[in-house]
Amino acid sequence: MEKDMEQVMKKAEVLIEALPYIQKFNRKIIVVKYGGSAMSNEELQKNVIKDVTLLKLVGFKPIIVHGGGKEISRWVGKVGKEAKFVNGLRVTDEETMEIAEMVLNKVNKSLVTMVEELGVKAVGVSGKDGGLLQVEKKYSDGQDIGYVGEITGVNPDILFDMLEKDYLPIIAPIGLDKDYHTYNINADDAACAIAKAVHAEKLAFLTDIEGLYKDINDKSTFISRLTASEAEGLIHDGYIGGGMLPKLNNCTSAIRNGVNRVHILDGRLAHCLLLEIFTNQGIGTAIVSDEEEK
Amino acid sequence: MEKDMEQVMKKAEVLIEALPYIQKFNRKIIVVKYGGSAMSNEELQKNVIKDVTLLKLVGFKPIIVHGGGKEISRWVGKVGKEAKFVNGLRVTDEETMEIAEMVLNKVNKSLVTMVEELGVKAVGVSGKDGGLLQVEKKYSDGQDIGYVGEITGVNPDILFDMLEKDYLPIIAPIGLDKDYHTYNINADDAACAIAKAVHAEKLAFLTDIEGLYKDINDKSTFISRLTASEAEGLIHDGYIGGGMLPKLNNCTSAIRNGVNRVHILDGRLAHCLLLEIFTNQGIGTAIVSDEEEK
Amino acid sequence: MEKDMEQVMKKAEVLIEALPYIQKFNRKIIVVKYGGSAMSNEELQKNVIKDVTLLKLVGFKPIIVHGGGKEISRWVGKVGKEAKFVNGLRVTDEETMEIAEMVLNKVNKSLVTMVEELGVKAVGVSGKDGGLLQVEKKYSDGQDIGYVGEITGVNPDILFDMLEKDYLPIIAPIGLDKDYHTYNINADDAACAIAKAVHAEKLAFLTDIEGLYKDINDKSTFISRLTASEAEGLIHDGYIGGGMLPKLNNCTSAIRNGVNRVHILDGRLAHCLLLEIFTNQGIGTAIVSDEEEK
Amino acid sequence: MEKDMEQVMKKAEVLIEALPYIQKFNRKIIVVKYGGSAMSNEELQKNVIKDVTLLKLVGFKPIIVHGGGKEISRWVGKVGKEAKFVNGLRVTDEETMEIAEMVLNKVNKSLVTMVEELGVKAVGVSGKDGGLLQVEKKYSDGQDIGYVGEITGVNPDILFDMLEKDYLPIIAPIGLDKDYHTYNINADDAACAIAKAVHAEKLAFLTDIEGLYKDINDKSTFISRLTASEAEGLIHDGYIGGGMLPKLNNCTSAIRNGVNRVHILDGRLAHCLLLEIFTNQGIGTAIVSDEEEK
Amino acid sequence: MEKDMEQVMKKAEVLIEALPYIQKFNRKIIVVKYGGSAMSNEELQKNVIKDVTLLKLVGFKPIIVHGGGKEISRWVGKVGKEAKFVNGLRVTDEETMEIAEMVLNKVNKSLVTMVEELGVKAVGVSGKDGGLLQVEKKYSDGQDIGYVGEITGVNPDILFDMLEKDYLPIIAPIGLDKDYHTYNINADDAACAIAKAVHAEKLAFLTDIEGLYKDINDKSTFISRLTASEAEGLIHDGYIGGGMLPKLNNCTSAIRNGVNRVHILDGRLAHCLLLEIFTNQGIGTAIVSDEEEK
Amino acid sequence: MEKDMEQVMKKAEVLIEALPYIQKFNRKIIVVKYGGSAMSNEELQKNVIKDVTLLKLVGFKPIIVHGGGKEISRWVGKVGKEAKFVNGLRVTDEETMEIAEMVLNKVNKSLVTMVEELGVKAVGVSGKDGGLLQVEKKYSDGQDIGYVGEITGVNPDILFDMLEKDYLPIIAPIGLDKDYHTYNINADDAACAIAKAVHAEKLAFLTDIEGLYKDINDKSTFISRLTASEAEGLIHDGYIGGGMLPKLNNCTSAIRNGVNRVHILDGRLAHCLLLEIFTNQGIGTAIVSDEEEK
Repeated sequence: MEKDMEQVMKKAEVLIEALPYIQKFNRKIIVVKYGGSAMSNEELQKNVIKDVTLLKLVGFKPIIVHGGGKEISRWVGKVGKEAKFVNGLRVTDEETMEIAEMVLNKVNKSLVTMVEELGVKAVGVSGKDGGLLQVEKKYSDGQDIGYVGEITGVNPDILFDMLEKDYLPIIAPIGLDKDYHTYNINADDAACAIAKAVHAEKLAFLTDIEGLYKDINDKSTFISRLTASEAEGLIHDGYIGGGMLPKLNNCTSAIRNGVNRVHILDGRLAHCLLLEIFTNQGIGTAIVSDEEEK
Repeated sequence: MEKDMEQVMKKAEVLIEALPYIQKFNRKIIVVKYGGSAMSNEELQKNVIKDVTLLKLVGFKPIIVHGGGKEISRWVGKVGKEAKFVNGLRVTDEETMEIAEMVLNKVNKSLVTMVEELGVKAVGVSGKDGGLLQVEKKYSDGQDIGYVGEITGVNPDILFDMLEKDYLPIIAPIGLDKDYHTYNINADDAACAIAKAVHAEKLAFLTDIEGLYKDINDKSTFISRLTASEAEGLIHDGYIGGGMLPKLNNCTSAIRNGVNRVHILDGRLAHCLLLEIFTNQGIGTAIVSDEEEK
Repeated sequence: MEKDMEQVMKKAEVLIEALPYIQKFNRKIIVVKYGGSAMSNEELQKNVIKDVTLLKLVGFKPIIVHGGGKEISRWVGKVGKEAKFVNGLRVTDEETMEIAEMVLNKVNKSLVTMVEELGVKAVGVSGKDGGLLQVEKKYSDGQDIGYVGEITGVNPDILFDMLEKDYLPIIAPIGLDKDYHTYNINADDAACAIAKAVHAEKLAFLTDIEGLYKDINDKSTFISRLTASEAEGLIHDGYIGGGMLPKLNNCTSAIRNGVNRVHILDGRLAHCLLLEIFTNQGIGTAIVSDEEEK
Repeated sequence: MEKDMEQVMKKAEVLIEALPYIQKFNRKIIVVKYGGSAMSNEELQKNVIKDVTLLKLVGFKPIIVHGGGKEISRWVGKVGKEAKFVNGLRVTDEETMEIAEMVLNKVNKSLVTMVEELGVKAVGVSGKDGGLLQVEKKYSDGQDIGYVGEITGVNPDILFDMLEKDYLPIIAPIGLDKDYHTYNINADDAACAIAKAVHAEKLAFLTDIEGLYKDINDKSTFISRLTASEAEGLIHDGYIGGGMLPKLNNCTSAIRNGVNRVHILDGRLAHCLLLEIFTNQGIGTAIVSDEEEK
Repeated sequence: MEKDMEQVMKKAEVLIEALPYIQKFNRKIIVVKYGGSAMSNEELQKNVIKDVTLLKLVGFKPIIVHGGGKEISRWVGKVGKEAKFVNGLRVTDEETMEIAEMVLNKVNKSLVTMVEELGVKAVGVSGKDGGLLQVEKKYSDGQDIGYVGEITGVNPDILFDMLEKDYLPIIAPIGLDKDYHTYNINADDAACAIAKAVHAEKLAFLTDIEGLYKDINDKSTFISRLTASEAEGLIHDGYIGGGMLPKLNNCTSAIRNGVNRVHILDGRLAHCLLLEIFTNQGIGTAIVSDEEEK
Repeated sequence: MEKDMEQVMKKAEVLIEALPYIQKFNRKIIVVKYGGSAMSNEELQKNVIKDVTLLKLVGFKPIIVHGGGKEISRWVGKVGKEAKFVNGLRVTDEETMEIAEMVLNKVNKSLVTMVEELGVKAVGVSGKDGGLLQVEKKYSDGQDIGYVGEITGVNPDILFDMLEKDYLPIIAPIGLDKDYHTYNINADDAACAIAKAVHAEKLAFLTDIEGLYKDINDKSTFISRLTASEAEGLIHDGYIGGGMLPKLNNCTSAIRNGVNRVHILDGRLAHCLLLEIFTNQGIGTAIVSDEEEK
C-alpha cells in the first residue's frame, strides 16, 4: 500500500511536470513527419500514434504526414515489377505511380483506424483532396524519372477546415500537377511545405537516426541544438551528406519560413515525441531560429 | 447568324426550364451511388462527374458513394490470386481485403481529382474516417466469407462537417467493426445507409439497367414510378430476383426511413442524373413514398 | 422517343456548358440596370425577371436598379400636368417629384412581386432606405431643373445586409440631399454608383440598342468589346454622342473603380442577360479593364 | 444659475425615472399602428417619429405599420375619380388600388426619411417584400368591393432579418393573394396580424380618440384598463359600435395570441407613446390579459 | 544515461496512461469544493491549484468553490471581536459578515493569483456577481444566527459566460437575499448548488478526512464507493453523524439532480484530485447513481 | 389634471432632448473613475450607480474604476495600525496591503450589489483577474513605500469579454508585479490606463472639486474646456499643483493616447454624470484633443 502510494505520487509528479509544456503549445499546430522504422515495427507504430493522439487530447493540433516506406517496394514486387532508382529517387512510371498511390492510401487509412481506435476523430486525405498539394515534374540531374513531383503550391484550407472541426488530419504525400496528373512526393518535402503553409509551431521528423552528428563516425560530435544559420554553415562546409542533406535543407527552409522549431527525432525510440515535448532532456537534434538562440 | 440566334435562344430556354428544379432542391442533400458501367467507361465517368459537379454548383449538396467494380478483380488477378465468390459475394480473405481497400481508395482519389479539375472542392474519405461506417461480419447463408461487412451504424458527422465547409464528399465503402478490423461493404448498402443517416432528399443509383420491369423479358412492362408499398408487393409476389432484389430492398428501406425519393437510373445513358433532375421526362424508375402518391 | 431523347440530351449539354460560368461568378455581385423597352413590354419584363432570378438561384448575387420609364410621364399626364424637359432632363418640380417617386415605388413593388412569384425572396427599397443614396442638386448648364439629384455618396450597408440574408435587392433611384429633401436620380447613374460601392463583378445595362457602334449608321462598325482606355479615346475623339455619352462615361467610371466588366445589352432581345453570361457568343458590347485586354 | 441648476436637476430626475421602463422593455418588440390625425398634422407626425426613434435608441425594437389616410382620397380625386365606399370600406377597383399603393409607398418612404433624419437606420417595405403579408379577397356582406384583402398568412422573416440588422422596419399595408395580385389591407388588421406573428410585447394604436368609453357620450365612463375578457363582454353586450368594434376585436385577438398588452392611444396628444411607456399616468386605454389582471 | 532513459520512459508511460481519462472528461465541467487543511497549508494549496490548472489545460472545465476557513476567525479576532457559534454555525452579525466577506474575497483573489501565475486565465467572483447565488436567511433550530444564508436560487449564466471565454471561475460563497442584503453561505452547500445548476460531470469535495467509514472508529469499514441509495440508507439508519451528515446529504442531492459522480477526497493528500481522476486506484469515497452501479 | 399634463409633457421633452446624445455615444465605452466624497455619502453613491446603470441601459458601455477612500484608513485603524504617508502616498507594508485589498474588494462587491439591484448584470474584478493590470514597485523620490504599484501593462481582454457578454465591469485598483506580488494602485492611474487600453470614448473623473481653476482662489478663473496642449501649457507654467497635477497629467495622457474626451466632474453634485452627458450645460472641466478644438 505504501509502495502503491509512492508510485501513485510519482504519477502525479509526472503529470504536474508536463503542465508548463501543455500550456506553452496549447492550440499550436505540430506537423509530424512519420516514416522509416517507426512505421515498419507494429509496436513502434502504436507508440507513435498514441503520442500524437495524446498531443491532440491535451490541446495541441497535430498533423501527420506519412510515407509509404517499404510497403511500396513490396507491392511493386508483388505484381512482378522491378524497382528502379536514379540518384536514390524511385523511377516512377505510370504503373508504379498507381501502386504507390494505392499503398500510401492503404497506410493512410490504417493510421486513421489506429487514431480512431483511441477515440480521436481522424481524417485521412492526400494532396489531391481540396487541392492541398500542387506539383510539377521533378528532374534528377536533368533526367526524367517519371511521376516524381516537386511541390509548387500548398492550399492549406482543407487542413484548417479539418482542424476547426476537431479532426486529426493524416496526409499521404501525393499531389497533382496543373494538368491533374498524379505525382508521388517525398514525404519530408511534403511535411516541410505543409508546416510552412499552416505556420506550424513545430515540425518533427521521425527518422532512423538519433539526430545530427558533425562527424557521423564520432558519437561525441552529436549536435542536440543548432540555429538555422549554423545548419546552413555545416551544409556549406560540406559536413552534411547523403540522405541528411535534403532533410536538413527542409529543416532550415521551415525555420526561415516561420516554423518556430524543427526536430530530428529517433523514431526507433519509443515515445520520442512525448519525451521531446514534455521533458527538458533534449531527445534528438533541434533546429531553432537565429533570433531564439540570442 | 439567324441560325446562331435561334440556337442561342434554345439555350436560354433550357436554363429557364431548369429554374423550378434548382429552386426545389436548393441546399438539399442528394446521395449518388456510382458504380457499374458508368465507372468503366472513361467518357461516361466524365459525364457523371460533370453532372454531380453541376448539381453542387447550382446549390445542391451531392454526396458520391462509389464501388470499385472490375478494378478489384483486375488487381486481385495482377498479384496472382484467384477471385472466389459465394452466392455472388466475393470471398474476402485478408489479402483480398487489402487489395480491395487499395483499389477503392485509388478509385476514390481519381474521382476527387476529376471533381477538383472542374473547380469544385472535394474530399475523398472511406467509412473509416471520422468513424463514418460501423459494421459487423456478414454471413452468406451461414457461411463465413471473410471480411464482408454488414452496416450496423453510421456516424454522419464527418459528412455534415464537410458539407458545411462546402466540400463534395466522395466515399469508399469500407468500414470498421468494433475491433477495428477492416471490412468491404456493398456500395449499394453503403449509399442507402448514408442517405438515411443524412436525411437525403434523393438517393440515386447509377446502374447498368434502364430501370425496373415487372417482367424483365417484356420491355413493355417497364415501371417508371411506384410507391414503396407497391415495391414491397412486387418483392413479396416474387417478381423481383437476382441483383435487383437487394437493390430494391435498399430503395424501400430508404423511403421508409425518411429519404424522399429513390431513383434507379441507367448509368450507361449520358447525363442521366441531370435529365432526371432537370426534366419531367422520367428517366429510369422512381420509388416514392405512399403518401406522395396519394 | 428517339427524337425525345435527342432533345433531352441537348438539354443536358446546355446545362453542362453553363457549368464553368456558374463556377466563375459564384457568389459574385452583378448589378443589373433595368429600364427602357425591356420594361414596357410585359413579355420582356417576365424574361428579364426570370433571368435575374435564375442568376440568384445558381449562386450569383444580383441587384436590380430600375427606372420608371414611360410610366412617370403617363401619371404626370393623368393629373393634368405637362411634362417639361431641359437638355433631355425632366424638369422636376415638387409635384412632379411626388409623382415620380410614387410611380418608381409602384414599379419597384411590381418587380418585387414578380421575383417573389418565382419563389425567390426580394426586397424593394429606394435610395432613402438605410441612407443608401446621398445626392445634391444637379444643374443643367447652370439651369435649375428642380429635384434632379447628382449622387455624392453611397452607403451600401443595406445592400450587404440584404444579400447576407439572401434577398434579391431591387432599387428605385430616389435619393436624399443633406437636408433630407427627395430627389430623382438617373437610373444609369444610380446603377453605376451602386456597382462601384459594392465592388460588383459585373454591371449590365439593359438598353434599347444592340450595343456600341463606332458609326451609328454603319452596322458593320459594331464594337463587341473594348477597353476602358479605348472607350475614353472614342469619347475624346467625338465618336460618341447623345444618350450614349453619359452611359459610356458611367461604364468607364465603373471599370476605373473596380467593377470588373460592364455590359451594354439589348434589352429587347429575350434573355440577353443569360445569353451574355452563359455563352461565349458575345451579346452586346463589353467594356473591360485595360489590364484584362493585355 | 441656481434656477438653471434646479432645471437641470429636474432633467436628471426624469431620466432616472425612465430607467425601470427602459429596463423592462429592453429588446422587446413594440408594434405601432400609425394613422389618423397623427398623420395629417406635420407637428404631430414629427413627434410620433421622434418617440419611436427614441424607443429604438434606448433598446426597444419598434415596428411601424402605417395607413395612408386622407392622402389616398386626395390622389384619387386628383386623377378625376370618385371615391366609393360600401359599409365604410373603400371600393377598390384596379386603378384605385394602383393609386392606393403609390400613395402608401410615398407615405412609407416619407416616414423612412424622417427616421433617417434622426440618425436611425430605417427600411420601408410593404407586405409584398419577402412575402410578408398573404391575403384573400374580402367581401362586405357578400358584396365584391374589389381589391380589399383579408390577411390569411404572415411570414415575419423579413422583419426578424431587419431587426437583427438593426433597422427600424416601416410597413405599408399592402399584400398579395395566392395569384400574386395586389390588395389593400386595413392598417389596423395589418398591425394586429404582424404583432401576433412577431410575438410583440406591445401593440399600440395611435387613434383619433382618447380611448375607450363605456358610454361614448359620458366622459366619466372612460376605461383606462380592461382585460380581454372584459372587452369581449362589452362587445357581446353591444356597448361597442362603429369603427371601434373591429379595432377592439383586433385588440382582444392580439392579447389572445400572445401579445402582452395593447394600447389605444390618442395620437392627437403629443408624445402619447413616450408618456404611456415611461410614466405610470395611464394615457389612453390598455387591454391586458386576464391572467395579468389577477 | 541508461538510468535517465529508464526514468524518462516511465514518464512517457504515465502520460500515456492518462490518455483515456483525458478523453473521457474532455470539456466536462468539474466543480471542486476547496477548503479545510488543503487551504491552510501553503504546500498543499499550491498542489491543489496545480491540479485544477492541469485539469483546465488538458481540456476539462473546472470551477473552484472555496471557503475561508481559519482566516475568518483570525480576522474576527484581529478586530477584537469574539467568535460565537450556535450548533456549529457561526453567528454572523453585520460586522462579522463584513469581515467574512472581506476575508473570502481576499482568499478568492489569492487563488486567482496562483492560477494566473501558472499561465491560466482566472476570474474570481462571489455569488453577488451576475446574480449567481440567491439566498434567504437560515435559522438554526428556529434561532436567528444572523447573516447565514440558505441557497434558494442559482443563476449560472455568469459561469457559462466565463467558461465560454476560457476562464477558470473561482467562487466565494457569498449571496444576496431578495432585499440585496449580503449573506455568508456554507461552501459545501454552494459547491453542491452550483454543480447541480451547471450539470457538472463531477463534484469533488477536498476534505480533512480520508473518506467515508461505516464505523468511524474502525478503519476496515472504509467505503470506497457507494450508490446514492446506499448513502441514503446509511443516513436513514443513523450511521452518519456530525459534519459528515450535511456533506453526504449534499452528495446525494447532487447525484439525484444530474451530477454524474461525487467524490469525497482527502485534501491533505497531495494531488488527490489528479490521482482520483487519472488513476483507477480509488482515492477517497465515490458516490455514484444507482443506475451506474447496475 | 392640466397641471399633471403639463408636467408630463415636460418629461417627454427631456427624454426627447436626450435623444441625440444617446445616439452619439451608442455602444461607446465610458470609463468612470469613482472615488472621494461621491463614495462616502450613501445618497450620492446611489445617484452615481443609477447614472452609470442608466448609461448602460440606453446603450453605452460603462466601466467603473473605484477607489477605497476612507474605508481603508478606517480598517487599518480597526486592527490597531497607524497609517503612514510619504509625499501623500500611503506607506503600504504587507499587512496594510492585505487590509487595502480586503477593503477594496468589499467596496467592489457592494457596488456590484447596487448595480444588480437596479436589474443590470455586473461583475466585480480586480487587476488580478485575467491578468488585467501589471505593475512594478513605485518609488516616491527614491524612497521605498512598500506595495504601491506603477502600472506597466494592461491586458484588457477580460473587459472586452465581459462587455461582450453584457456585464458592467467594476474594477478594484489592485495589480500584480512580475513575481505575482500584490500591489495597491492609485485609482486615477488605473482608470486612465484602462481608458487608454480599451480606447474609451470618454474618461470621467468624479472628484471633490468643481473642476479646474487657473487660480484656485479666484472662482472667476474656472475653466470649462481646454485642449490637451493648453493643459500641458498650464502644467508647464506652474499653474497646477497638489493633487490636481497627477490628475491632469492622467487627463492629457489619456487624450494623447486615443481617448476622445476627459471630464473632471464634481462628484458631490447629484447626477453630474448624466448632466454632463445629456445636456449642453457644461458641468465641470472638459479636456479635449487639439484637433477637436480647431
